[in-house]
Amino acid sequence: MSRPDAPAAESAVPELDLSTTGGQLTARLVDIPSVSGSEQVIADAVEVALRKLPHLTVERDGNAVIARTNLGRAERVVLAGHLDTVPIADNLPSHVEGDLLYGCGTSDMKSGVAVQLRIAATVPEPNRDITFVFYDCEEVEARRNGLGRLAKHHPDWLAADFAVLLEGTNAQVEGGCQGTLRAEIRTTGQRAHSARAWLGDNAIHKAAPILERLAAYEAERPVIDGLEYHEGLNAVRIEGGVANNVIPDECLVVVNFRYAPNRSPEQAEAHVREVFDGFDVVVTDFAAGALPGLSQPAAAAFVEATSTTPTAKFGWTDVARFSALGIPAVNFGPGDPNYAHKRDEHCSLSAIEETEKRLRAWLQS
Amino acid sequence: MSRPDAPAAESAVPELDLSTTGGQLTARLVDIPSVSGSEQVIADAVEVALRKLPHLTVERDGNAVIARTNLGRAERVVLAGHLDTVPIADNLPSHVEGDLLYGCGTSDMKSGVAVQLRIAATVPEPNRDITFVFYDCEEVEARRNGLGRLAKHHPDWLAADFAVLLEGTNAQVEGGCQGTLRAEIRTTGQRAHSARAWLGDNAIHKAAPILERLAAYEAERPVIDGLEYHEGLNAVRIEGGVANNVIPDECLVVVNFRYAPNRSPEQAEAHVREVFDGFDVVVTDFAAGALPGLSQPAAAAFVEATSTTPTAKFGWTDVARFSALGIPAVNFGPGDPNYAHKRDEHCSLSAIEETEKRLRAWLQS
Repeated sequence: MSRPDAPAAESAVPELDLSTTGGQLTARLVDIPSVSGSEQVIADAVEVALRKLPHLTVERDGNAVIARTNLGRAERVVLAGHLDTVPIADNLPSHVEGDLLYGCGTSDMKSGVAVQLRIAATVPEPNRDITFVFYDCEEVEARRNGLGRLAKHHPDWLAADFAVLLEGTNAQVEGGCQGTLRAEIRTTGQRAHSARAWLGDNAIHKAAPILERLAAYEAERPVIDGLEYHEGLNAVRIEGGVANNVIPDECLVVVNFRYAPNRSPEQAEAHVREVFDGFDVVVTDFAAGALPGLSQPAAAAFVEATSTTPTAKFGWTDVARFSALGIPAVNFGPGDPNYAHKRDEHCSLSAIEETEKRLRAWLQS
Repeated sequence: MSRPDAPAAESAVPELDLSTTGGQLTARLVDIPSVSGSEQVIADAVEVALRKLPHLTVERDGNAVIARTNLGRAERVVLAGHLDTVPIADNLPSHVEGDLLYGCGTSDMKSGVAVQLRIAATVPEPNRDITFVFYDCEEVEARRNGLGRLAKHHPDWLAADFAVLLEGTNAQVEGGCQGTLRAEIRTTGQRAHSARAWLGDNAIHKAAPILERLAAYEAERPVIDGLEYHEGLNAVRIEGGVANNVIPDECLVVVNFRYAPNRSPEQAEAHVREVFDGFDVVVTDFAAGALPGLSQPAAAAFVEATSTTPTAKFGWTDVARFSALGIPAVNFGPGDPNYAHKRDEHCSLSAIEETEKRLRAWLQS
């Protein structure tokens, strides 16, 4: 049947009703698919909804949307979240079972985005100026990351005293994040037939001290801003061997150093080189950590208002991008990280309410 | 043009003239392609040539041919060689350059086969009874080996006091051969995200003592029948790792033990298990070594008659099959082992003459 009066569905921007509950708004966002690289429709919906709020100024860069209050407050804080999801795994549309909302992106992290939008709509006169950042391509390779693009092209848009990234933490405050560095350590020798091994030089045997040093390594657990971090230096791969009757002439050990945010990437590299002194060490990639910055006034007030006991964040997250801009940042969001990227991904509706309530308390106290 | 009087080339058996020089006979054999599995034509040619010699009785099993003198001598010796070659590498037909005969199989080991045939034809009344063994499929997997098949189906055909395998040794006597054993040594742990390494248990780190023991291992060099062997215990492969951010839960080290022939395979295995005491050791394959047996009268006479200083054979060869039958055996042949399996494979014509001359001296002294 022809419906000439219907709007062209593909070009229509889905409407977001920011007066519904955080749980309902999360479901609405989840039902707008936005796998990394396909965030245009959801970014349009967020932009249109924010432009209806007269207390905000709104900017757009690709599929990132930035909205700001401009009240001249003494402090400015960022509430940030990404709009994209991992690929859908037969888990759309969303559905509710008791207190749980199921579906792709419920936990990671459209529940956090819903809380951002609810705060944007319902806290028109916060005690601190707020910058809301919604960005694209967090779930894919770092060079495509929307927050990284904003930091490069519009660092002024991100300027703030403190940032909260609403990635799922089960509504707990996780401060900063550890850095990560990967390095290849290679030993070399000389091939020979294994029947005449003494004519060769076994590169696998020469890797013994590398593994010994790893096995003996005592990881540090520094306390920073009251949070205990926990470093780790580990082999994540080893390979060597030419054939079952050949003395191998090369052995590769790939190590991953996870380091507390009181080390810079340069200091982390120097440490790894010191541990493996005498060996050929090539750093293949690294990412800086992020200091929790909990001694900043905005951060201290945040911790007090949210009534949680902060813990250290061990995994690397986008808070490190804020840290690189000189902005202390924490993770605080309603999602359950244990269910991120899973087929049965879900989020607690009450955690969404709780997160919104605590942020509201902080921004209105 | 039609040639109705020509013989059907494909069914004709090439004629071998055993009165030519060893070099000429080698070239003739080389020009009959006999890649492993395709030895029928050359085996037919050898069988037909041997059946013309009235002092020999001839047996056939598949593409193996066995010829024997039956003079009732006090001792019986075997002269053995394989008829097959590795795949042809654009190196046929054979050609001569100075003293060198080039082509696939010249060194490994049709020059040795030519010497066997020359002795068969020209020493009708040897001082020791001789069993000539020509066999198939030496260059492929062990289960197809023609000598292994004969040892299984007709051990009586191989019965002897001493055996000479005419594999290329540059006309030097190489005694016995070392055994070989491969084992997998595995460590296990517990996976975890590398950002929280303390929740896991790194299997690669646990392999440190395996590599330490290998690096510290002091190989024995036992002297047997005056020959110095040289053992070796080596890692030939190592692998471990799940992903660049995961603590690995398994690491595999494959070791190869090359052992002197005074150890049985069981003793070799016990030794490896002792070295890696406390680890999970699985023996995946092994082959027994072969004692040189140079104290046997036939062997002592052989060494004296050939005027060479015997050395130990480190690599595994088919002499071990004779050893398994209780027959001491040595390698002694005209080929140059350094050119076996190579495109520019070749053999010295004078080494062929020299080998034949020394064997004749031994069998006619």
